[in-house]
Amino acid sequence: MPVLVMKFGGTSVATLDRIRRAAKRVGREVANGYDVIVIVSAMAGETNKLVGFVSETSPFFDAREYDAVVSSGENVTAGLMALTLQEMDIPARSWQGWQVPLRTTDAHAAARIEEIPTANINAKFAEGMKVAVVAGFQGIGPDNRITTLGRGGSDTTAVAFAAAFGAERCDIYTDVDGVYTTDPRICGKARKLEKIAFEEMLELASLGAKVLQTRSVELAMRYKVRLRVLSSFEDNNETAGTLVCDEEDIVEQNAVAGVAYSRDEAKMTLISVADRPGIAAAIFGPLAEAGVNVDMIVQNISEEGRTDMTFSCPVDHVKRAQRAMEEAAAAGHINYKELIADTDVCKVSIVGIGMRSHAGVAAKMFGSLRDEGINIKVITTSEIKVSVLIDRKYMELAVQALHDAFGLDRAPA
Amino acid sequence: MPVLVMKFGGTSVATLDRIRRAAKRVGREVANGYDVIVIVSAMAGETNKLVGFVSETSPFFDAREYDAVVSSGENVTAGLMALTLQEMDIPARSWQGWQVPLRTTDAHAAARIEEIPTANINAKFAEGMKVAVVAGFQGIGPDNRITTLGRGGSDTTAVAFAAAFGAERCDIYTDVDGVYTTDPRICGKARKLEKIAFEEMLELASLGAKVLQTRSVELAMRYKVRLRVLSSFEDNNETAGTLVCDEEDIVEQNAVAGVAYSRDEAKMTLISVADRPGIAAAIFGPLAEAGVNVDMIVQNISEEGRTDMTFSCPVDHVKRAQRAMEEAAAAGHINYKELIADTDVCKVSIVGIGMRSHAGVAAKMFGSLRDEGINIKVITTSEIKVSVLIDRKYMELAVQALHDAFGLDRAPA
Repeated sequence: MPVLVMKFGGTSVATLDRIRRAAKRVGREVANGYDVIVIVSAMAGETNKLVGFVSETSPFFDAREYDAVVSSGENVTAGLMALTLQEMDIPARSWQGWQVPLRTTDAHAAARIEEIPTANINAKFAEGMKVAVVAGFQGIGPDNRITTLGRGGSDTTAVAFAAAFGAERCDIYTDVDGVYTTDPRICGKARKLEKIAFEEMLELASLGAKVLQTRSVELAMRYKVRLRVLSSFEDNNETAGTLVCDEEDIVEQNAVAGVAYSRDEAKMTLISVADRPGIAAAIFGPLAEAGVNVDMIVQNISEEGRTDMTFSCPVDHVKRAQRAMEEAAAAGHINYKELIADTDVCKVSIVGIGMRSHAGVAAKMFGSLRDEGINIKVITTSEIKVSVLIDRKYMELAVQALHDAFGLDRAPA
Repeated sequence: MPVLVMKFGGTSVATLDRIRRAAKRVGREVANGYDVIVIVSAMAGETNKLVGFVSETSPFFDAREYDAVVSSGENVTAGLMALTLQEMDIPARSWQGWQVPLRTTDAHAAARIEEIPTANINAKFAEGMKVAVVAGFQGIGPDNRITTLGRGGSDTTAVAFAAAFGAERCDIYTDVDGVYTTDPRICGKARKLEKIAFEEMLELASLGAKVLQTRSVELAMRYKVRLRVLSSFEDNNETAGTLVCDEEDIVEQNAVAGVAYSRDEAKMTLISVADRPGIAAAIFGPLAEAGVNVDMIVQNISEEGRTDMTFSCPVDHVKRAQRAMEEAAAAGHINYKELIADTDVCKVSIVGIGMRSHAGVAAKMFGSLRDEGINIKVITTSEIKVSVLIDRKYMELAVQALHDAFGLDRAPA
């Protein structure tokens, strides 16, 4: 029988009623002829409660005990989902991570999946079981202690199971009905995408469109898992939601697939840094050690052996960045005249694999922002993305203008 | 190092503060030179919540999924207790049932412990770990699925660990400060016992003094585990609580150790049953099949080949008992004139190993009840117990009178 993986997030299993609704969706896929692997998250709020317990007990906790505690929410949902399916006369049973066993690295609280043996579950499918319900987010490390995969890890569990079992598709049921051209809360014309390429989804995921955990998309891309994001709260037909798939499966496409933004950015500029080999390492090494997430980096043209170095980071990393730079200067590793922090900026990006074949996309973006009177402070580009740093007050205007300029409210012809 | 087992029940770990208090007690025993095995229950209310989820999801649930769900509460407490101990700089780690692995029968929801390997935990003790925190109530069955030991099963887990590790003592921390001569809520003169013999505790436990799970006492008796019941909410010295121990360790004793009662009993009488070989089996077989907990049984003297058969059972089993008897009669397996149910009775018992050597204990009991004008409806006796069925309205009076008559308010001379 073909295998289908269905993943239900925390809000989709928040109550017994919602678990029942999710189970009905599973039942329909069983009726469609699939052997189904269901990956469940903890009931909404449970994981936060457990994380709160751990943090209150021990501010610098032993991550192994953290994992033992916070993984328990998924076990509850897995058992309840199996019971609900049994009530519907669908042969089902639950598996906890250690029972599969889903093997991971020993990086507790942020483990990576190493192996998913299929023999146990396939033997049960062969015996007539129709649904394997697996607790998401968890596995066991080399020493047989429980590990977790980091927040959102159930998405990654689902994709990894889909890859291991050669599933026809991996459906991620969540509280939104798909991936949009941009955030509908700030742009009324935002349109749900029918399909999006893995690479685009990766850029959007890391830019803050919190639909899927980034690692799950990476994994899906590597193993060519067809990934569908769809709503738990609506009736879905065959083409519901958004399919995240290989670029080749997308026939018609706009140059730009979506507009992403990240609200709370800061722009930091080191004025008059000595422009010598190794200066970038001398600056960004200490920043990395201080845990500053540096995003964009721009170096001005050098004049008389000195240059300005600009980088962006999340607003709440500014203090750390300042301290790291002061310490590096005090230690004589760098010298600069001044460090200017602009904490009123945001990042707006356009993403699309179509950029590779469409010329002038960046120019069109800059022209559109100019027409709105928006000043661009920093620009970075990659093969399928252009990002700009602008004043935060223009964020919504910029997103709306770019959405219009690239015709994202219309499906590709 | 000598090993001590300490068990903390649900109310003793109900909040993070209480877990901290419990951890301090553990810390004191570590300072006293013990390697400590801590057995924890779920935080008070958690197991009930999970049982509620299961029952609401599936009235006739798959006990294997029930076990997977309800065992998760203990895992949370075990991790939090380990973290709390670590915060106090005490080397500790948690174990879930499958990690020990604590092997049980496959009787899900009521499994019996079969094996507790000591190698894993002893290896950690040898490396310098001071406290092993073990999730109580749970194990794994022959097929590696999670099992639970029935309500109160953490007591049994604790005693089994004490037996497996040859612990010096097994301390059960709970919300009462020991075992009393009777229930202090109905007899103001009730006195805490310093020691009680296993056999007495067994009779009291099965009579409804809900301090310890009956099976934990059986296990302690079989393996001669010194079991101490004491309060989580008071300062305890060396002789705090009640020691449940071998009869030989009790030097001074009253003839009677305690007075127990069971409030909601019913007395059922089958009038004029044919008195023939096999009649008891023909009556009590169907009752057992119907799930009726028959307690006391009395058969009248036979007259002209017919007799009356009286038995007691919990009040809420009366309907089932009536139906079972009617069906047995309809099937021609028994015949009787009438089935009389008296649902206004209770059971009062005196328990004490001293009865073996003290004559006239039963007579003294009956005399004391007569002096209060209390009519005895049924009597049963065992080597260390005399039980009577009386009208429920006399229950408190009877308990108080017997407590006085046997001088239980005074410690044995």
